[in-house]
Amino acid sequence: MLRINGNRLCEKLFEMAKIGATTKGGVCRVALTEQDKLGRDLFIKWCLEIDCVVDIDQLGNIFARRLGRNNAAPAVMIGSHLDSQPTGGKYDGVLGVLAGLEVLHTLHDANIVTDVPLEIVSWTNEEGARFSPAMVASGVFAGEFSLDFAYNREDKVGTKLLDALVEIGYKGKSEVGNRKYKATFELHIEQGPILEAAKKSVGIVTGVQGIRWYNLLLNGKETHAGPSPMSFRKDPMLTLSRLLPRIFELTKIHGPDAKVTVGYINAFPGVRNTVPGYLDISVDMRHPCEEILFKMHQDLTAIVNVEKHIDQDVGHLELVWYSPPVMFDTGCIEAVKKATEKLAIPSMEIVSGAGHDAVYISKVAPTSMIFIPCTDGLSHNELEHAEKVDIINGTNVLLAAVLEMANDCDLEFRN
Amino acid sequence: MLRINGNRLCEKLFEMAKIGATTKGGVCRVALTEQDKLGRDLFIKWCLEIDCVVDIDQLGNIFARRLGRNNAAPAVMIGSHLDSQPTGGKYDGVLGVLAGLEVLHTLHDANIVTDVPLEIVSWTNEEGARFSPAMVASGVFAGEFSLDFAYNREDKVGTKLLDALVEIGYKGKSEVGNRKYKATFELHIEQGPILEAAKKSVGIVTGVQGIRWYNLLLNGKETHAGPSPMSFRKDPMLTLSRLLPRIFELTKIHGPDAKVTVGYINAFPGVRNTVPGYLDISVDMRHPCEEILFKMHQDLTAIVNVEKHIDQDVGHLELVWYSPPVMFDTGCIEAVKKATEKLAIPSMEIVSGAGHDAVYISKVAPTSMIFIPCTDGLSHNELEHAEKVDIINGTNVLLAAVLEMANDCDLEFRN
Repeated sequence: MLRINGNRLCEKLFEMAKIGATTKGGVCRVALTEQDKLGRDLFIKWCLEIDCVVDIDQLGNIFARRLGRNNAAPAVMIGSHLDSQPTGGKYDGVLGVLAGLEVLHTLHDANIVTDVPLEIVSWTNEEGARFSPAMVASGVFAGEFSLDFAYNREDKVGTKLLDALVEIGYKGKSEVGNRKYKATFELHIEQGPILEAAKKSVGIVTGVQGIRWYNLLLNGKETHAGPSPMSFRKDPMLTLSRLLPRIFELTKIHGPDAKVTVGYINAFPGVRNTVPGYLDISVDMRHPCEEILFKMHQDLTAIVNVEKHIDQDVGHLELVWYSPPVMFDTGCIEAVKKATEKLAIPSMEIVSGAGHDAVYISKVAPTSMIFIPCTDGLSHNELEHAEKVDIINGTNVLLAAVLEMANDCDLEFRN
Repeated sequence: MLRINGNRLCEKLFEMAKIGATTKGGVCRVALTEQDKLGRDLFIKWCLEIDCVVDIDQLGNIFARRLGRNNAAPAVMIGSHLDSQPTGGKYDGVLGVLAGLEVLHTLHDANIVTDVPLEIVSWTNEEGARFSPAMVASGVFAGEFSLDFAYNREDKVGTKLLDALVEIGYKGKSEVGNRKYKATFELHIEQGPILEAAKKSVGIVTGVQGIRWYNLLLNGKETHAGPSPMSFRKDPMLTLSRLLPRIFELTKIHGPDAKVTVGYINAFPGVRNTVPGYLDISVDMRHPCEEILFKMHQDLTAIVNVEKHIDQDVGHLELVWYSPPVMFDTGCIEAVKKATEKLAIPSMEIVSGAGHDAVYISKVAPTSMIFIPCTDGLSHNELEHAEKVDIINGTNVLLAAVLEMANDCDLEFRN
């Protein structure tokens, strides 16, 4: 059976990690910086070495194409991103791109030609660390945002994404989104603890959980902590003391896949001896099932409404973002599953907790993802780590799944 | 019966409020600024007009002395402060100083000489808005801090208190704390809602509640809000959801005089889609009774310890400041009470929720305070307001109480 070259893949991973390397062993290769340009240059050099045809679109997305037998047919695509968080790790994104490269390299060495062409894609600005929102370029590709919207994103010092793109010489000519795919795959570290805890080398990603983001404002009356008896106060912390247990209780009510995160509780004025005038609280709720996530939304609203019945002016719950759950393509999921079975790799089905370029791409092409464990679930961190055995297993599964979708039969996959 | 001149007092209050007047009707006369100097100059001018002898000590505390029959005897003192918060009101502090002036003015006009001398004191930097801690000068006077400690307090731009004092020309020669008092009184706005709600014109202040300040640190593990199931998380917000109701419950357990304030809950990193790595929480507990406040302390410790039994690394409760309850002098309290009765002014006993110069002075001299209501309990605010009728009532009570303590009998007080 055909296998990828794990040493070659890891060498390339570490070679790429030198670009923007941090002292703590991580990577700072933020989108559209000089480091990003160097990473792109290296990636393209490697693609050209295995005879890929490289194209760059108007958003700097890089497409490296390996021709097949029928080049008019939609390609099978492997995509992820080369940009990193400011204090990111060596695997997030770049693994998916270089695993794609290794898959094509393996086919190149074995002189295997697929029925349909293959493409590796590196998407611009997946992290959103410099230009918000995240995944903006795959979003434009999928028709979620306009090209103008993306071009006008600004970083902290007011530089527009378009200008940064031109600056590093990566504004290409191809129209964004003018490519059709038969299937697309993204290999990524899990960025969570599930696979590691379950001792599975590969996660067959069936979808991405839905997300609801809320701003919860709780009103109070700013009062000196000394003179006012409790009965005279309007204290939003007291309201919070009733709400917080009920909000977390939602994770018990709605089962083990329900997640609730309160990231901050900002008190104003936020001084020790003053009852806050108001609290600004974030609530992040997630669930893989749209109906259950909606029920959680109803319950959260009801919890706040109970307080409103006591005090009309208690505050306000506002839904600020909703990303519905994504179910990946059953054909692509099946191809991944079949690959793990063929290769006898310990695997399990898993739902992605985080967003990925694959979420947007899944709107315009059959898509699924492959996860591998990362140590302690650590990601967006310079200490991010993935084991070589899992990198190899995940990339072999990617190879097999790609071949499954790129050929009418899987004859070439046999040794 | 002898009465103060309310119009004259209010004219002086408004004249003083012109120095550092803000557009919203408040005052910005921060300690040891040019505005503070102008306020001090005006106050001294007024004291000299009624033949007081003015002395300034090494911390800029101003002592205006009206001679009595026995000038070797300890004086009766009326003290407060002329400095304000950056966005302060027209009454906080200055009322106590100018009410003292009005009391002496009234005696001056009536040619009344008391057995012991009288003094008005304006204490330097009561607010602590520029130089922390608050009440530092009365603190040095009472032996709570050293003179060097006070001199070396720095403002935000690194200016030392000593240099600011010299700069405005108010570093006097008298040793700080070398004066003895028979009795001292401080008239102040309540800075709380109790008198207004009870429709009382004067509060007979029996003491100052004790204060315990805590830092509560709750540990978590920084985790992406997406991938980690709830059962994998170490979420300090979840710990908080158990602790917060129990902390506020202490006010129910320990009765209507118990106060608990949580001024801030700072989450780190404090972003929407990350389980916080830790929370930094302030807890302010107050009670007029030392034993009950200690019981509250024990209960709070026990509440945190319950969590420690579940997780040794749950966090840490640290007492960062303790100010024991103060019981004012029964003789001084009695003098105030007798005055309200003689004058038939609606009054009630009250415990001060905030700190005042009188707290430190009470350590070295028989002391009590007189409160008057302020609208909506509002203070440290440009909209701070006190009604003229209450100002007059409070100052008449001050006059009567001072005379009660300054004479062997109260013959002169009769009309």
